[in-house]
Amino acid sequence: MKILYFGGQKSGKTSLSIVRTKEISRNQKPHYVATYLDNYDDKEMKTRISRHQAERRDDFITIEEGVDLNGILKENQTYLIDCISMWILNNMEKSEEVLISEIQKVMCSRNNIIFIINDVSSGIIPLDKMSRKFVDLTGIIGQEIAKACDEVYQVNYGIQRRIK
Amino acid sequence: MKILYFGGQKSGKTSLSIVRTKEISRNQKPHYVATYLDNYDDKEMKTRISRHQAERRDDFITIEEGVDLNGILKENQTYLIDCISMWILNNMEKSEEVLISEIQKVMCSRNNIIFIINDVSSGIIPLDKMSRKFVDLTGIIGQEIAKACDEVYQVNYGIQRRIK
Amino acid sequence: MKILYFGGQKSGKTSLSIVRTKEISRNQKPHYVATYLDNYDDKEMKTRISRHQAERRDDFITIEEGVDLNGILKENQTYLIDCISMWILNNMEKSEEVLISEIQKVMCSRNNIIFIINDVSSGIIPLDKMSRKFVDLTGIIGQEIAKACDEVYQVNYGIQRRIK
Repeated sequence: MKILYFGGQKSGKTSLSIVRTKEISRNQKPHYVATYLDNYDDKEMKTRISRHQAERRDDFITIEEGVDLNGILKENQTYLIDCISMWILNNMEKSEEVLISEIQKVMCSRNNIIFIINDVSSGIIPLDKMSRKFVDLTGIIGQEIAKACDEVYQVNYGIQRRIK
Repeated sequence: MKILYFGGQKSGKTSLSIVRTKEISRNQKPHYVATYLDNYDDKEMKTRISRHQAERRDDFITIEEGVDLNGILKENQTYLIDCISMWILNNMEKSEEVLISEIQKVMCSRNNIIFIINDVSSGIIPLDKMSRKFVDLTGIIGQEIAKACDEVYQVNYGIQRRIK
Repeated sequence: MKILYFGGQKSGKTSLSIVRTKEISRNQKPHYVATYLDNYDDKEMKTRISRHQAERRDDFITIEEGVDLNGILKENQTYLIDCISMWILNNMEKSEEVLISEIQKVMCSRNNIIFIINDVSSGIIPLDKMSRKFVDLTGIIGQEIAKACDEVYQVNYGIQRRIK
């Protein structure tokens, strides 16, 4: 089973996807894949991460992997990937084709996977090349994921709606 | 009764929330709480505000209050707060905890309150600390409000959808 | 018949609107109105445009017109306008009133028209005057179009929802 949760910044998508992850992984402890690379030396982000880790300590096996998703996936497990946007940001030197191919491989893996995407598609796009590429890739990779998902949820202000 | 209208810039959320406010306040004139502080010396904004004020002159009692929402709320009245995003912007020196506590008090008041939030969650977030804090707080406070609301509406291009 | 498709950057709105355009123009070849003016000397954009043109070569008559929509519309034809946001950007020196009046004339034309809008309403709005005006106009013109449309679709990650 593959599921996508998307929503804007602080929309509540992580909390809601955690609930859904626990529902679909009753017999086994699910894996929480943290894609944030702790190399930006950002104090605020570190505080936020510690708080999130504490929240899920008992319910998840945490894996920190920001680059190679296929490298960590085993079989017949449940994974919550938080989040795909950060994975894209960590892989910006790769081409669109390579990233699509990597995500397609993820979609074919024999696991339950819940994906989180931080929606960045609906603002004015900054002119710099990197921001444009990031916004475009998030949309393109998001389409690939949504296409192969059994369920897709939009989250606004803590309220989820299933759209597929 | 508590109601939330959210939508992007120029989505038509104010007009639609005005209609709903009139519907639920039949016997009494409702209050329009303008949270915009007229201290930015912004001509374009002043023109816009004057136009809005003229539109609602006959239907609302206008209260201008950008900081202390609990200070203006009486009991058994109807209030349209336009908007929460501006209230957050006016209170950026306060902590997340203080703002949550203030909004929780608002949610408990014995009044009909219609809240408007300008959705800023779905674009690239600027790197400066203030913008990040503003975007985060809008999401966090928005979740607090949505959780306690009887009705939540999303507005796009003048079309409203009830999502709670 | 008038139809609006809106969605963020790389949401898949063009592909979905092309499908709908073909459905409603069975007997005649529809027109694809490309509003992008090829005068920004943007290599990446040129590559993207060439790819898009190749995709629709057999199914559409392409018209390149970024400024004067009413000038190209005949009668009893089907037009896909991709996109209104770019048309607004190309007409930024005109006033809100002039643009509203032009779009109202488009809405009254005796044609099937499918409109695409790139949603830019839900991020932090840059402080510069032009960006603010562009965001505001996109919302205001979008409301005019949605009001006169028979169908309105929201698109996220390749998934469409009819909201009117």
